[in-house]
Amino acid sequence: MEITLKDLAEIVGGEVHGDGTVTIRSVAGIREAGEGDITFLADPRYEKFLKETRASAIIVPRGTSGGERPHIVCENPYLAFVKAVNHLVPNRDFYPAGIHPTAVIAPGASLGDGVCIGPHVVIDEDAAVGEGTAVLAGSYVGRRSRIGAGCLIYPGVMLREDTIIGDKVIVHCGAVIGSDGFGFALDGEVYRKIPQIGNVVIEDNVEVGANVTIDRATTGSTIVRNGTKIDNLVMIAHNVVVGENCILVAQTGIGGSSKLGRGVKLAGQAGVTGHVVIGDGAVVAAQAGVTKSVKPGMCVSGYPAREHGTARKIYASLNKLPELIKRIADLSARVERLEEKADE
Amino acid sequence: MEITLKDLAEIVGGEVHGDGTVTIRSVAGIREAGEGDITFLADPRYEKFLKETRASAIIVPRGTSGGERPHIVCENPYLAFVKAVNHLVPNRDFYPAGIHPTAVIAPGASLGDGVCIGPHVVIDEDAAVGEGTAVLAGSYVGRRSRIGAGCLIYPGVMLREDTIIGDKVIVHCGAVIGSDGFGFALDGEVYRKIPQIGNVVIEDNVEVGANVTIDRATTGSTIVRNGTKIDNLVMIAHNVVVGENCILVAQTGIGGSSKLGRGVKLAGQAGVTGHVVIGDGAVVAAQAGVTKSVKPGMCVSGYPAREHGTARKIYASLNKLPELIKRIADLSARVERLEEKADE
Amino acid sequence: MEITLKDLAEIVGGEVHGDGTVTIRSVAGIREAGEGDITFLADPRYEKFLKETRASAIIVPRGTSGGERPHIVCENPYLAFVKAVNHLVPNRDFYPAGIHPTAVIAPGASLGDGVCIGPHVVIDEDAAVGEGTAVLAGSYVGRRSRIGAGCLIYPGVMLREDTIIGDKVIVHCGAVIGSDGFGFALDGEVYRKIPQIGNVVIEDNVEVGANVTIDRATTGSTIVRNGTKIDNLVMIAHNVVVGENCILVAQTGIGGSSKLGRGVKLAGQAGVTGHVVIGDGAVVAAQAGVTKSVKPGMCVSGYPAREHGTARKIYASLNKLPELIKRIADLSARVERLEEKADE
Repeated sequence: MEITLKDLAEIVGGEVHGDGTVTIRSVAGIREAGEGDITFLADPRYEKFLKETRASAIIVPRGTSGGERPHIVCENPYLAFVKAVNHLVPNRDFYPAGIHPTAVIAPGASLGDGVCIGPHVVIDEDAAVGEGTAVLAGSYVGRRSRIGAGCLIYPGVMLREDTIIGDKVIVHCGAVIGSDGFGFALDGEVYRKIPQIGNVVIEDNVEVGANVTIDRATTGSTIVRNGTKIDNLVMIAHNVVVGENCILVAQTGIGGSSKLGRGVKLAGQAGVTGHVVIGDGAVVAAQAGVTKSVKPGMCVSGYPAREHGTARKIYASLNKLPELIKRIADLSARVERLEEKADE
Repeated sequence: MEITLKDLAEIVGGEVHGDGTVTIRSVAGIREAGEGDITFLADPRYEKFLKETRASAIIVPRGTSGGERPHIVCENPYLAFVKAVNHLVPNRDFYPAGIHPTAVIAPGASLGDGVCIGPHVVIDEDAAVGEGTAVLAGSYVGRRSRIGAGCLIYPGVMLREDTIIGDKVIVHCGAVIGSDGFGFALDGEVYRKIPQIGNVVIEDNVEVGANVTIDRATTGSTIVRNGTKIDNLVMIAHNVVVGENCILVAQTGIGGSSKLGRGVKLAGQAGVTGHVVIGDGAVVAAQAGVTKSVKPGMCVSGYPAREHGTARKIYASLNKLPELIKRIADLSARVERLEEKADE
Repeated sequence: MEITLKDLAEIVGGEVHGDGTVTIRSVAGIREAGEGDITFLADPRYEKFLKETRASAIIVPRGTSGGERPHIVCENPYLAFVKAVNHLVPNRDFYPAGIHPTAVIAPGASLGDGVCIGPHVVIDEDAAVGEGTAVLAGSYVGRRSRIGAGCLIYPGVMLREDTIIGDKVIVHCGAVIGSDGFGFALDGEVYRKIPQIGNVVIEDNVEVGANVTIDRATTGSTIVRNGTKIDNLVMIAHNVVVGENCILVAQTGIGGSSKLGRGVKLAGQAGVTGHVVIGDGAVVAAQAGVTKSVKPGMCVSGYPAREHGTARKIYASLNKLPELIKRIADLSARVERLEEKADE
């Protein structure tokens, strides 16, 4: 694929500054790019690389100087980059329709048109795979589970029985969806298993990261709503509801029955206890430990999680704590002397 | 299945209040329940839903008002719910005896009566699977490993060589048992692998969550004792011993050679360093970082983990820290003025 | 295998103290060892077990009294133990060359001499497996991926397309290498996937733990350099570079584009944010949250991570915080009284 910068600017929705006739053949990161590559600047921390990059052109956000090099100015460089990649880099990894002879398709399973069922896949009894969906090597689709159309189920994914997956969902390798919720009733000293008779529902356009675990509900459904993106090694417990367009970064965990609103972000390794509500648009900082409900739009951090401005002040104050202790001891001695003097 | 509330009360071990002739057909959560469902109230936070639930009946703990609706009063609503589910909801997911033709059973492997060996399962040399145990799609049982009777090994479970699993154990999808302990000897700048020649022993009635990892011992055994329940994505390092009836919530980690007593609880994302002892009945709060041994019955929280009452006071005090700094500066100025006056 | 202590001392590189004619047949931990076993003491916390061990001999570090029992004194007991194990314990778990009939080898895949390809393995199009490498049950090697010589890929490992693995690499069960980086461009309220067209490169002598996830780069490569050892359930995000001989303990996570130098250690459950640099030889304590770059050789702990000495002082000071608040209230009252007196 080869295109002039001018033509690419039209595709990605930006304006060319400098020589629009320069030829672009591929995309690359700002530090790795070479001749023929277009790169992009989205994070201001990378502005220092603008001068030294060997890219033929750069996509920059409005308000940033693109320098002498030919560049495209646009509102959203990330989005422009997505469009550039989709245009310039051919997708080599399509999955042709067909059922591999080693796949095991149980009685009653139904497969839509154009599905790709990889080697050693198991589609269990009465499961359904939608049109154009790929279920790749070694994955398992449990009894009565239903996967929608245009999904990509990578190798080694385990979907337990009765799991419902919408359209255009991507599930990465090793993810487990529909494992039993962690529920036990204490009977003396012994834990009795509470049967987990619910299921998991994943709506359209969700992405589930590698080795994620999403537990089925005790009764009812654990739900992940439309457009939510889940990074690797995330844990979603039974009866959780994750709203639309949330971002759950790697190694976060959400306790049983908690509800996340729309557009919530959990940064890496954050934890949310069970039975709380995280309001629309709330942000939980990395490693934060959420112990109670969070209001819409609020940003929280630290353990236990507090409003981020408050938490920042506290964590900054900590630096002064050892010195404070000395100062208080000093003040105490001085007050004592003053008291002695006053009593004289 | 259909039963009167009166008959159900006998099965679950409680007393009927209100109309015992009402018909119960299924179970559901308090917010999802409808006509014909029985629900339960175990968590006082859900008491507010008592009035609005559409359930035909409710199981409530002694001391709670069940309201106008027919209800069963009992000591342990969780346990009663377990009994109700087991009675009312037919288990659709039994695994009929048989060996799938795609399973690979190596020479010397032995299979008990009534085992269910799923598609693409591998039972390696000299491994043994006990009576009535199900090993489901794509799971791997390593050389000389032994699984007891009545176990349920979900799809995609990996048991490395020499692993010993007791009776009535449940292992969820993607769990790895018997991976090498993380042991290396530094040789100059280079790490040499310490061969991990021990194994893992899982006793009876244990449940191992999805994508859990339990490492084999360097020498000897990593042990999980009878009745312990392990949630998803938990890490148990080499030579750890977990006592009976422990609860390890999701994403917790236990460092090498640490020992947990009986009935220990680790809440979500907690970490326990290596070579420490957590006494019987101790509780480690969510995200706590245990850096030294914990006495029996003690509850610890925070980082580094402290006795919970102490930790709570500290974490509450943090809120006042920024203001304290101002107050000390103010006191300091006032003391200085007093000193000047006193010197006059 | 049977050897005299004297001969074993030569093999492990140490000096015998006591009876060198004693017969050694195996190795064991200090608490489990019996007659015929050699054990070792590396951690001073285990010195108390020296007297009560039933081992026939002990390997001890120079400067430690080995007591009355025959012992070998050496510089590095861990390393000596490695040599003793390698000599005394036959490796029962070699993997004979051969391709299991149930393995699926796609067109264009190439297999080196002496490879062992286990049951239900899939080697996808144009992938290559080097000489003497074992790819065990149910593992998947994606299109155009290349594994070097002498590697051990345990059961259930998923290598996505274009992954490059060096020589003598060990990958444990359930690890996922080459999953998509977590990159999305916000388009209004909706996240658009940024295609992840890079790959993962793992150099020689690396060990990757069970259920680890290593994401492919957005463009370019995510890299793990020679000799680095990665424990279970670790997350390495897209475009991360991990230097040589690093140690990443279980459940740690490294955010996108961060760089670790040589010999860096991340203790359990630590987190490193994206776009930072951890200098050579730096150490990050367990559960620490690294929010900015760390200088070479520095040790950091706590959240947000600070220089360890500073952090220790702060965390120790916290114990005094509730009392400080009382003292300040008391001082405040006393200063007020002094001020009143001074004004009289």
